[in-house]
Amino acid sequence: MNTMVLGVAGGTGSGKTTLTRKIKERFGDKISVISHDNYYKRQDHLSYEERCLTNYDHPDAFDTDLMVEHLAALKRGETIYCPVYDFSQHNRSDELLEIKPAPVILVEGILIFSSPELCSLMDIKVFVDTDADVRILRRIVRDVKKRGRTLDSVVSQYLTTVKPMHEQFVEPSKRQADLIIPEGGKNTVALDMLIHRLENHLSSN
Amino acid sequence: MNTMVLGVAGGTGSGKTTLTRKIKERFGDKISVISHDNYYKRQDHLSYEERCLTNYDHPDAFDTDLMVEHLAALKRGETIYCPVYDFSQHNRSDELLEIKPAPVILVEGILIFSSPELCSLMDIKVFVDTDADVRILRRIVRDVKKRGRTLDSVVSQYLTTVKPMHEQFVEPSKRQADLIIPEGGKNTVALDMLIHRLENHLSSN
Repeated sequence: MNTMVLGVAGGTGSGKTTLTRKIKERFGDKISVISHDNYYKRQDHLSYEERCLTNYDHPDAFDTDLMVEHLAALKRGETIYCPVYDFSQHNRSDELLEIKPAPVILVEGILIFSSPELCSLMDIKVFVDTDADVRILRRIVRDVKKRGRTLDSVVSQYLTTVKPMHEQFVEPSKRQADLIIPEGGKNTVALDMLIHRLENHLSSN
Repeated sequence: MNTMVLGVAGGTGSGKTTLTRKIKERFGDKISVISHDNYYKRQDHLSYEERCLTNYDHPDAFDTDLMVEHLAALKRGETIYCPVYDFSQHNRSDELLEIKPAPVILVEGILIFSSPELCSLMDIKVFVDTDADVRILRRIVRDVKKRGRTLDSVVSQYLTTVKPMHEQFVEPSKRQADLIIPEGGKNTVALDMLIHRLENHLSSN
C-alpha cells in the first residue's frame, strides 16, 4: 500500500477540525486520522492544580516522539494504539485508540509543523489560515457554550499562553506549509481541490 | 464545453510566471493563458516622457473592463483578440494576439484579484505568496540582467510605485484567494495538486 500523509495545521479556531471532519466523512475507512492533541504528555507526577498550570500551547507539552513513531508505523502498514487524552483531568487516560493503516493518513494539530521529524513524514502540508479575531471568537463560543468554561478563564488563557505561543511557534511553522488554505473547512474550492488530490491517490492505489 | 477559469495572482517576482509556464507546458492547447499585463491602457495621448511617468502598479493603469469582456467571451466559447502591450514604448502595440477558447483558461496578473468582476469569473483563485525580499531580488536580477535596466532605476521604481502599490492593492487582494501557494512555481507539492485538479476537470469534459 502506498500511503499518502496529509498534515493539517493551523491556530486554534482556524477551521482545521472542520476541514479534517469533512475529509474524513468523504473517505471513511480509506483515511485514518491521528491528532497531536492525543499525544499530550503524561502528567502523573503532578497534582491536578499543577496540571492546570501546564502550558498546553508549547511544543514541549506534547510527546511528539511517540507520534513520530506511530506515524512511521502507520506508513509501514502497522496498526497503532494511540493514547487518548482526558482534557477534564489534564492527563493521559488509560484508554487506547486503535488506528489502522490506510492509503491516506491525516495528521492534524496546531503545532505539527513545528516538528521537523513529523514534517519529514508528510507528503502534503496544509496550513489553515484564519484571522486571529475570527479564531478567538470561535474559541470563545466553543469553550463557553460547549465546554461550560467562564468567559474570564478563556480570555485569561488566551492572553497568557494561547496567543504568545501562537506567535512564537504556530505562525512561524506556516513556513513549512505547501499550501495555505484561508478559512479552513468553509473554503469549498480548497476542500474540493484536496478531495480531488486524495481521490487520485486512492484510485491509483 | 465546460470551462474552468484559474486565476493566478501574486506580487512582482512571486513565482506567478513560473507557475503559469509549468501549467501551460503540462496541458498545451487544452489551456489558454490570458495576461493582465497585455491590458495596460492605450496611452496615445501622452508623450513618451509622460508615459514613462505612468504608475503601472495601480489598478487604473489597466483596461480591466476589456479583459472582463474577453474572459466572458472565452467562457462562452468565443475566440478573442487580445491586445499586446509594447513595454519598450509604454503603450499598446498594433498587434493582436488570437486566444482560442479552451477547457481551462488561466488568467494571470499582479492585480487580477483587485477586480471583483474578474474574480467573479474565476473558479479557482490562487495567490502565489513569496517574501518581499526574495521578490525584489528576483526583480532586480530580471530587470538588470535580462532587460538591461540600471540598478538605480529598478530601486527607484520599486520604492516609489511597486512597493506602495503592492501594499495598497496586491497584498489586500490576497483575501480573495481560495488557495495561497508559498514560493509559486518551485512549490512542487502545490503545483502537483493544481495539475491533478485540472486533469480531473479535463477528463470529465
